[in-house]
Amino acid sequence: MHESLLKYIRNHSTTTLTEQDVEAIKKTFVHKHYRKRQYLLQEGEVSKYVVFIIKGAMRQYTVDAKGIEHVSRLSIENWWVGDRESSTNLTPSIYNIDAWEETDVLQTTLTDFAKYLSHIAAFGEMFRKLDERHAFAMQKRLNAAISMTAEQRYNDLEKNYPQFLQRFPQHIIASYLGITKETLSRIRTQTVKK
Amino acid sequence: MHESLLKYIRNHSTTTLTEQDVEAIKKTFVHKHYRKRQYLLQEGEVSKYVVFIIKGAMRQYTVDAKGIEHVSRLSIENWWVGDRESSTNLTPSIYNIDAWEETDVLQTTLTDFAKYLSHIAAFGEMFRKLDERHAFAMQKRLNAAISMTAEQRYNDLEKNYPQFLQRFPQHIIASYLGITKETLSRIRTQTVKK
Repeated sequence: MHESLLKYIRNHSTTTLTEQDVEAIKKTFVHKHYRKRQYLLQEGEVSKYVVFIIKGAMRQYTVDAKGIEHVSRLSIENWWVGDRESSTNLTPSIYNIDAWEETDVLQTTLTDFAKYLSHIAAFGEMFRKLDERHAFAMQKRLNAAISMTAEQRYNDLEKNYPQFLQRFPQHIIASYLGITKETLSRIRTQTVKK
Repeated sequence: MHESLLKYIRNHSTTTLTEQDVEAIKKTFVHKHYRKRQYLLQEGEVSKYVVFIIKGAMRQYTVDAKGIEHVSRLSIENWWVGDRESSTNLTPSIYNIDAWEETDVLQTTLTDFAKYLSHIAAFGEMFRKLDERHAFAMQKRLNAAISMTAEQRYNDLEKNYPQFLQRFPQHIIASYLGITKETLSRIRTQTVKK
């Protein structure tokens, strides 16, 4: 059950995990299943879990005043989910996170993480790198949102995250790109033709 | 000359700076003046400076295939500038950074930073917090770009960074928001009327 998490930590840090570290990780990160459409986090709640996806897919989104959903993040196997801003500052989240497929995760509360795992150097290193990569990815996506055409953004997504196109339906992809379903459909038809 | 930088570091970390730390900072961060429109970084170069603005304003932007500039970041006094992704991964930057006003900065190369300042705990703490805050801000701005109306985005900017509206002209603000000058102008007229 914990193999993919341990592998992930080992791949993303230079510090070796000791036997005790592995035991502590296995005890602290517990398995949880989310049914399709089940919430991990709802708008207004404080995000209090550290969650690693073993199998499945989740999406993070806001809902505007007209009830329209706007997808801000998509996550699949071997990704971390959660609203770091909310959990770091203990402020209510503006996001919803739910399972898009039947999803298995390993999760722990931030309290338990701090209590049993915060002494493990590999975690500190891994999360610092994750923060950094996340900041870079956000900067790029923002830049794409303000400067690229819908078609360029779609091509970028196809190049960088081809798996998203297999796992999520067109309306979710359109929302993630900040374009209409009709525009996405037109782009896909053109791309196939080329 | 170094007062605002030292004050900034002290305000953003819990670790005390020693006399030796202060001396090392003063020696390593040197003053540089950028004339209006002078480049700090050009697209294709690797970003190799750590730069703190003492006085003035800079902008970070990309230029698309049609020669249109897209402003991804605006920075004023007490902000750090540079492309962290480029300097961390040693990859050519996709951004240009130039001075929008006559600008005075304190800057050092990453090599000198690593050599003379990386042992100072306050810096590590400060940059970790900066990365975190930057990731949060990017996530919010991205969310705004894909889900909010032009008017909501303008109001958000007015609330969070009112100083930008005084320091940068309308076409820069419009580009930063990812909207046309005409739309911005219409929003401003409406806002005044309300």
